[in-house]
Amino acid sequence: MENKIAVYRKEHFNAAHRLHNTDLSDVENASLFGKCNYPNYHGHNYELIVKVIGEVDPKTGFVIDLKLLSDLIKEHVIEKFDHKNLNLDTIEFKNLNPTAENIAIVIYNILRTKLDKKYDLKIVLYETERNYVEYPA
Amino acid sequence: MENKIAVYRKEHFNAAHRLHNTDLSDVENASLFGKCNYPNYHGHNYELIVKVIGEVDPKTGFVIDLKLLSDLIKEHVIEKFDHKNLNLDTIEFKNLNPTAENIAIVIYNILRTKLDKKYDLKIVLYETERNYVEYPA
Amino acid sequence: MENKIAVYRKEHFNAAHRLHNTDLSDVENASLFGKCNYPNYHGHNYELIVKVIGEVDPKTGFVIDLKLLSDLIKEHVIEKFDHKNLNLDTIEFKNLNPTAENIAIVIYNILRTKLDKKYDLKIVLYETERNYVEYPA
Amino acid sequence: MENKIAVYRKEHFNAAHRLHNTDLSDVENASLFGKCNYPNYHGHNYELIVKVIGEVDPKTGFVIDLKLLSDLIKEHVIEKFDHKNLNLDTIEFKNLNPTAENIAIVIYNILRTKLDKKYDLKIVLYETERNYVEYPA
Amino acid sequence: MENKIAVYRKEHFNAAHRLHNTDLSDVENASLFGKCNYPNYHGHNYELIVKVIGEVDPKTGFVIDLKLLSDLIKEHVIEKFDHKNLNLDTIEFKNLNPTAENIAIVIYNILRTKLDKKYDLKIVLYETERNYVEYPA
Amino acid sequence: MENKIAVYRKEHFNAAHRLHNTDLSDVENASLFGKCNYPNYHGHNYELIVKVIGEVDPKTGFVIDLKLLSDLIKEHVIEKFDHKNLNLDTIEFKNLNPTAENIAIVIYNILRTKLDKKYDLKIVLYETERNYVEYPA
Repeated sequence: MENKIAVYRKEHFNAAHRLHNTDLSDVENASLFGKCNYPNYHGHNYELIVKVIGEVDPKTGFVIDLKLLSDLIKEHVIEKFDHKNLNLDTIEFKNLNPTAENIAIVIYNILRTKLDKKYDLKIVLYETERNYVEYPA
Repeated sequence: MENKIAVYRKEHFNAAHRLHNTDLSDVENASLFGKCNYPNYHGHNYELIVKVIGEVDPKTGFVIDLKLLSDLIKEHVIEKFDHKNLNLDTIEFKNLNPTAENIAIVIYNILRTKLDKKYDLKIVLYETERNYVEYPA
Repeated sequence: MENKIAVYRKEHFNAAHRLHNTDLSDVENASLFGKCNYPNYHGHNYELIVKVIGEVDPKTGFVIDLKLLSDLIKEHVIEKFDHKNLNLDTIEFKNLNPTAENIAIVIYNILRTKLDKKYDLKIVLYETERNYVEYPA
Repeated sequence: MENKIAVYRKEHFNAAHRLHNTDLSDVENASLFGKCNYPNYHGHNYELIVKVIGEVDPKTGFVIDLKLLSDLIKEHVIEKFDHKNLNLDTIEFKNLNPTAENIAIVIYNILRTKLDKKYDLKIVLYETERNYVEYPA
Repeated sequence: MENKIAVYRKEHFNAAHRLHNTDLSDVENASLFGKCNYPNYHGHNYELIVKVIGEVDPKTGFVIDLKLLSDLIKEHVIEKFDHKNLNLDTIEFKNLNPTAENIAIVIYNILRTKLDKKYDLKIVLYETERNYVEYPA
Repeated sequence: MENKIAVYRKEHFNAAHRLHNTDLSDVENASLFGKCNYPNYHGHNYELIVKVIGEVDPKTGFVIDLKLLSDLIKEHVIEKFDHKNLNLDTIEFKNLNPTAENIAIVIYNILRTKLDKKYDLKIVLYETERNYVEYPA
């Protein structure tokens, strides 16, 4: 493990959402999610940290070119979610409750298919400065 | 002026909004506001800093009790805007475009009526870490 | 492990303390702890991050409701330590040196008994912006 | 005014204090200051920003050498307050309530006598990330 | 003044520099600037905050479109200084010592010519988290 | 593992560098590293976090005295790299491309020899607020 190194790239997007499980009644949703379930949505400045673990390429001194990683995140994640309503504007959360946990897992699954298998991948997502998640743990 | 001192209290709220001038056509709105005009809203973690300027009360050593100021902000501003859709859920932005500038002015006007006239008041509002406003300048 | 996810909640408290091992002489304490041993205490804004690891509940989309976790931390940790003198006002540090390491372990032990066994738990405690600890490592 | 420029230097110190007006009864103090009046003190990581306004010296390109300003702050402010109990260990707050407002004024008065009269001076003091003061306003 | 509002846009650039007054001897430069004068340069992540003061345009709700302001800063400031050696690669600092003060003044002068006269302009430049300047004061 | 705890100490240094593999042609270097390869260097405020993992010493309540750890980092890392040109002024990067990855590995190797073998060690290095690395992963 000593010869592996992790690199991190931080990006952000702004989105609206509401916590809502479409399989439950409105009463149950209100009880479970409180003000996060308000019908007309609220929103966040999401801070997204993508962690990629691998070996240093002796030619470049990089695990992965962070400029390329940033472009990858922008193309496949930021473009999709930035300035969007997660519940209404995205296929991913049409039937999936857009909690920070689920958003992180969705982003992981998107980037996992775009990233060479030799790399390990981890997603950290800040919903607010005080609430954030990491996947996989 | 040397005997005046400023105190600051930082609070936050999360809200959805879209930039939209109800007096303009959809085409004009899209042209003026770009992705900030997307129809289904996006959102932000708004960081709100309330600055109160006055003299130090020799009895308390305070300009104003920041606990009371915090309660005032929570009761009259945070309760009104937190986890809301500014365009749909608030009277203030029914016909007023909820730009950071206009939100700061609205918050100023709310707090100005609640605060003793002996104090000067200033509002700083962060829409994102990189975009923020201050009123009055 | 891929199906586990971590959630983090950040809280804070302000407390006074001094580093002092009650089993050692004053001379030894002064030599070991320097200005951190000054007799009349100093203090910190402690930033506390509680990390809970588990599986996502498909009903809520949560590992754990962060509002409930926040309430738990406030009730059992913040209430106990906030605006207190750790050495004088708390049972936990009557005979235990309140280093950041020991405070983190004490908080871990408190929360471990309050949290369902299905969750893993980790505590990060910032004593200053430049000095912090994590338990368990 | 266009040819004046401000330079800022940020330092910090950790101290214990309690809010207490020695001219008032214990009951009045408890009522005015709540948990900030607890008898055994609490504490903070104070962040201190010293702002110096003047003209750029064409020889150095500096308003003032920030290394010298930092040394000045350390010698006359940090040495005095760091790792101290403001109420018990300092002359300045023996009979003066150590609110953030009063600490900022005391620091201003100390540095004003050490700084060339050609400079204007302002003090910003963070007691917590959410509560801070500025003197003069 | 009550009807004026300030908007802020934060950008950043990374650059190398050394403090060196080309009119002075090497001995004098070393004495004045210490390690900041080392011959082979060092560098910083400069954080640049551009403050624009004006009235809110009732049509847009903006003082100025922050997207346009950001583009203006990127075109005329960031392109010029980012990933450059300020002493060697720029006309502006060929004979001007690249202190934070002078860099802020140079940036002010560049942007002042690009910005409508109806706006007031202020530059804040962070050289490090603990050293920063503001022009005009 | 439950009885191990990690302590962190944050330090910083400012340095110039350029990304350049001395075994490759100028054309290849320019193609691989873009503006990070500009010939006259650029620079960064590097934030360095040193993580030390061990058991709490019952006498001190410390894993390691963070004052001693800070002194160790300053003597062996900060003195070597602060206000330097990594490519020109240091032996370590004479023939090694000073990417964040390689700088972190070099710092790890330096501190590993200075630190008691009973401790585990990890290095986190921020090149910018948005790009950082961790070694070992």
